Amino acid sequence: MGKFVVIGERIHCISPVIREAMANFNPEPILKRAKEQLDAGATYLDLNIGPAEKNGVELMQWGVKLLQENFDNVPLALDTANMAAIEAGIQVYNRSKGKPIVNSADAGDRIGYLDLAANNDAICIALCSKHGIPSDNDERMAYCQELLERGMGLGMDPEDMWFDPLFLVVKGMQDKQMEMLEFLRMLTDMGLKSTGGLSNVSNGMPKHLRPIMDSAMVAMAMQCGLTSAIVNPCDQRLMETIKSCDVIKNETLYADSYLEL
Amino acid sequence: MGKFVVIGERIHCISPVIREAMANFNPEPILKRAKEQLDAGATYLDLNIGPAEKNGVELMQWGVKLLQENFDNVPLALDTANMAAIEAGIQVYNRSKGKPIVNSADAGDRIGYLDLAANNDAICIALCSKHGIPSDNDERMAYCQELLERGMGLGMDPEDMWFDPLFLVVKGMQDKQMEMLEFLRMLTDMGLKSTGGLSNVSNGMPKHLRPIMDSAMVAMAMQCGLTSAIVNPCDQRLMETIKSCDVIKNETLYADSYLEL
Repeated sequence: MGKFVVIGERIHCISPVIREAMANFNPEPILKRAKEQLDAGATYLDLNIGPAEKNGVELMQWGVKLLQENFDNVPLALDTANMAAIEAGIQVYNRSKGKPIVNSADAGDRIGYLDLAANNDAICIALCSKHGIPSDNDERMAYCQELLERGMGLGMDPEDMWFDPLFLVVKGMQDKQMEMLEFLRMLTDMGLKSTGGLSNVSNGMPKHLRPIMDSAMVAMAMQCGLTSAIVNPCDQRLMETIKSCDVIKNETLYADSYLEL
Repeated sequence: MGKFVVIGERIHCISPVIREAMANFNPEPILKRAKEQLDAGATYLDLNIGPAEKNGVELMQWGVKLLQENFDNVPLALDTANMAAIEAGIQVYNRSKGKPIVNSADAGDRIGYLDLAANNDAICIALCSKHGIPSDNDERMAYCQELLERGMGLGMDPEDMWFDPLFLVVKGMQDKQMEMLEFLRMLTDMGLKSTGGLSNVSNGMPKHLRPIMDSAMVAMAMQCGLTSAIVNPCDQRLMETIKSCDVIKNETLYADSYLEL
């Protein structure tokens, strides 16, 4: 399936610094976070502008151009509840380093994001859920099939649908983790790509434990065939683990300097 | 399958300090390493006295009694090419904390170790190899079946045969890692237990990389169902990863203090 794709999650309007920067069209804090994430090994950057009901079109186009002009057309995931803003972002998006990712569709109210991706030759993250958390893998698979059917009906290449199993929080859903991992294996057996918000696993844990738990999870998930994740690439332990798993999976050639590459 | 079983590898005559201690029946260095490994979370301790052709019986009995008397009958893996020494060690072994482990049989010249384990109601590590490294999983499985057949014919519980897939060095055998992991999954699907010298994976790598690579591997292997490994429990990153995977697998209950438990 190729090298693991790290989507950097840190340009997100939930961060006060980023929200402020987006409110004032101030490039510096956004460029700083972009550089940190790219230096740490991110392939894609997620650009989350929040609901952006008022000025979403303008803001997304500004953000896309800002990041791509400063970082050699870095590929981006466009993330907002404002669908018009995503389409506007794609209009100014340069594809030379990879298709844009639409973040994200599900099998419920957000199914239209799949149409949006199909109509704009974009990759789409497809959550295997409809109303909240799927109760088991039968439900996950039903939604996956629904999304796959629709996407393919719209002419999408299945390679462009990256299925999200919904990573679940250990604190409260400890007994559901292996089933979620088994679902990743099912996706892999079907030849499908996958991604997701992996650090949800360690939500609510003491801060020093989160990189430890996330690293264990990403290795187990990569063994099951996970092809991408939306994570903080500045988590050094996590990135070391991802690179090591890519070596074990023979997706990148080992060299003593592999962590620096 | 229960919590992962860590077999501490550091009481090994290949270490100059330990060789010296064994030559002089000097308890202190051995007790020190035992304490370090138990404090770090080892369940079993491997006691490797080397070939020990001359005084193996005396040395193994001394070592078994020394460790069990000082550490509350800690369970042990008895490791030597001298079979009489293993039997002698078992004679003085206290089983209250777990059966002794015979380390190790294979499907070749060392097949007799399986008989030794069967005759002494011991656990046996069974290498899925005959003459060196198995070339593929067909070969691994043929040897596994041979060992399983013989052990069961001798009345052993399959639970008492811990199959070793032979962990392979990444530097030189990078393209063989996933097949080895797939073999672990085959063992798991058969309901069999597994173990092995996991750190062989990172042999020859720069020292600072070894805990990183070993941790990635142990998580991937635990996802495939690995139930035990012979490792250095003083490798903190490795132990953190093992404990985190046990949480993800729901083998131990999560608590914010789970790394200290």
